[in-house]
Amino acid sequence: MAMTELSTPKTTSSFLNSSSRLSLSSKLHLSNQFRHLLLLPPLHTTSNSKISCSVSQNNQAPVAVQDNGSVKTKKECYGVFCLTYDLKAEEETKSWKKMINIAVSGAAGMISNHLLFKLASGSVFGPDQPIALKLLGSERSIQALEGVAMELEDSLFPLLREVDIGTDPYEVFQDVEWALLIGAKPRGPGMERAALLDINGQIFAEQGKALNAVASPNVPCSGESLQHQNFHALTRLDENRAKCQLALKAGVFYDKVSNMTIWGNHSTTQVPDFLNARINGRPVKEVITDHKWLEEGFTESVQKRGGLLIQKWGRSSAASTAVSIVDAIKSLVTPTPEGDWFSTGVYTNGNPYGIAEDLVFSMPCRSTGDGDYELVKDVEFDDYLRNRIAKSEAELLAEKKCVAHLTGDGIAFCDLGPVDTMLPGEV
Amino acid sequence: MAMTELSTPKTTSSFLNSSSRLSLSSKLHLSNQFRHLLLLPPLHTTSNSKISCSVSQNNQAPVAVQDNGSVKTKKECYGVFCLTYDLKAEEETKSWKKMINIAVSGAAGMISNHLLFKLASGSVFGPDQPIALKLLGSERSIQALEGVAMELEDSLFPLLREVDIGTDPYEVFQDVEWALLIGAKPRGPGMERAALLDINGQIFAEQGKALNAVASPNVPCSGESLQHQNFHALTRLDENRAKCQLALKAGVFYDKVSNMTIWGNHSTTQVPDFLNARINGRPVKEVITDHKWLEEGFTESVQKRGGLLIQKWGRSSAASTAVSIVDAIKSLVTPTPEGDWFSTGVYTNGNPYGIAEDLVFSMPCRSTGDGDYELVKDVEFDDYLRNRIAKSEAELLAEKKCVAHLTGDGIAFCDLGPVDTMLPGEV
Repeated sequence: MAMTELSTPKTTSSFLNSSSRLSLSSKLHLSNQFRHLLLLPPLHTTSNSKISCSVSQNNQAPVAVQDNGSVKTKKECYGVFCLTYDLKAEEETKSWKKMINIAVSGAAGMISNHLLFKLASGSVFGPDQPIALKLLGSERSIQALEGVAMELEDSLFPLLREVDIGTDPYEVFQDVEWALLIGAKPRGPGMERAALLDINGQIFAEQGKALNAVASPNVPCSGESLQHQNFHALTRLDENRAKCQLALKAGVFYDKVSNMTIWGNHSTTQVPDFLNARINGRPVKEVITDHKWLEEGFTESVQKRGGLLIQKWGRSSAASTAVSIVDAIKSLVTPTPEGDWFSTGVYTNGNPYGIAEDLVFSMPCRSTGDGDYELVKDVEFDDYLRNRIAKSEAELLAEKKCVAHLTGDGIAFCDLGPVDTMLPGEV
Repeated sequence: MAMTELSTPKTTSSFLNSSSRLSLSSKLHLSNQFRHLLLLPPLHTTSNSKISCSVSQNNQAPVAVQDNGSVKTKKECYGVFCLTYDLKAEEETKSWKKMINIAVSGAAGMISNHLLFKLASGSVFGPDQPIALKLLGSERSIQALEGVAMELEDSLFPLLREVDIGTDPYEVFQDVEWALLIGAKPRGPGMERAALLDINGQIFAEQGKALNAVASPNVPCSGESLQHQNFHALTRLDENRAKCQLALKAGVFYDKVSNMTIWGNHSTTQVPDFLNARINGRPVKEVITDHKWLEEGFTESVQKRGGLLIQKWGRSSAASTAVSIVDAIKSLVTPTPEGDWFSTGVYTNGNPYGIAEDLVFSMPCRSTGDGDYELVKDVEFDDYLRNRIAKSEAELLAEKKCVAHLTGDGIAFCDLGPVDTMLPGEV
């Protein structure tokens, strides 16, 4: 198979053994809305102690514009973003941070159309953080990418200093600090889940190879350039929806709900955790006494949102998905409020919950705001929660076997069972 | 005709003689993208000296939530936004400003889909300004409005405290401080401009009546409840595009372009003013020596953006239009930087440029940030600029005659000439 070439470099394999696990399983469950996200937080700008090699950042401010006003263009840049300038030479910009490079795949899609403008406006990384956007599309979407770049031009965002567009992940991912992988194939009519897993597995495998090769060119880590803990799979929209549903049931505003965990896969086996969540600081089960609803109605109320939205609006949830991506990024670059946590799909390696290693699994995390995270230790389990987490774990282990040919784990064997666990609204 | 009923109350007539002038003319030129915007800045919360009647605001914070957690619902509210709460009772919210009510028409459309999330996030009115959104749709779009409200719920914006949806402008506009009128009919295949003007004229006439009737119920101003100077028609996207095109030509970043005026109508007769605009503080004609391009290429480069975007992306410019609406609002609620100005379509009454009175016309304005504005006096004119402004003025005067039946000015007579001045990309 064409994919065997992917199993050679250890890091690519590692990459695929990690993020792609949930990537792939998540891809399995997605479609028109490209719900899945692979977040790649600051690769080597954080004080991440696990990065064991010396690093020199290669994102200098561009050189000064020439006095005669002539324009120096560079490959793949777009329009006004091809201009050169010197941020340190200008009064308004000299106190700004160093520019960060953010790659976004699926950049011509609807989620990106919301997300890119949030990134460029400064509402994600702050008013003193200049941004370079690297938009990855397909041959088919390259014209659309130009359209997106045009709209970014016309928005006059002061912080947005570079926009590059391209179709080759090896070029687009060059030196990026963040990679937001939003693009994937939708599930076609009658398509088997295993087939979708395979198609999107190839996309992510290729992008993973490219990230490993070019995202941190200056890290002499003999192939260990990308750290496992830097990969995230998005479950934040599910977390946000779960908070809202608990608030509705309790009759309180949604800002009163905290400590909401989504456990597991991005599928119907995912577990919105009402045992550890809190409302006004109190355990949910004390506030919501309808425990039958918690056990039988709550999860469905969260999972049906996507389908309901398509039914009502005729479109998938692009705007709120983009908001949840922003929330997920902010959770890594700002300190988690005391006593609270957030959910994100990360490596199970070394987890304190007894979940199988070498999976990407949504779990409760905290961050000091440095781009890194740690798993929350003081969570409770009961039989109900344990059993449901075990089901999601089993599903991810089965999906892992489906993509063995992509992860360097041998020959794929795919038995996902008769139940379609794709989330409603993601067909 | 059905519209004659609209000519009775003086204020409605005044309203239509004002904002609807450009509204209607603008409507004439719009379509799928619903480009036109009628901004209604704070009606009676500003220190506007022209408001001559006493005012008592009716936007109290909601009453405290009942201790037993029961939910008090109100008509038209949606989901979690039906909950009651007391902002003044909570530590995190007690320092917040009084809530403002913002109505948005065309709320299920693509521009609104970007705009509503910006308003709700706090990025327009600031992090201490709670927001109530009043979404106006049609019978056909009411389900879609529910979908939008669902996505707003799932976004957990702390500042967004109320979302109401409805199809009756008399209910939706109740007590609003801002009305962002984005919805209108697109121009159908083969439709005459006059017919489109008439259709959208009716929409705006009805909405104008409703605004006059309910937007400020406590203002005992014998029918003069809405002030002419509170109406704005959007030309900010054109201004932003003009800045970007000048920047590109000059080889500088777009933040170096200032004092950009769009004069006139939202049509191809509009005049992006390169005589008064500045680049790095210097007159554009000193920096860009290709005066032939300024006179013959520049305007087209601005006006073709919309069409180019549709060609490239297959969609109209929803995201950048929403950004420009935010820019337009921010220009009224934050002080204009010294020496600079912005463009907005406002009443010509009392204008110092010799433009006919009683039109809504895009002109250069400054604001102290109180929601009001004043026209800029120190602008230059030359024959080229005078002639082009006169053409846009003549067009608006002709369009005014087309909607005489809607504005209480007698029987309509419509002769718009053989040239279709609808902007490219707005067909």
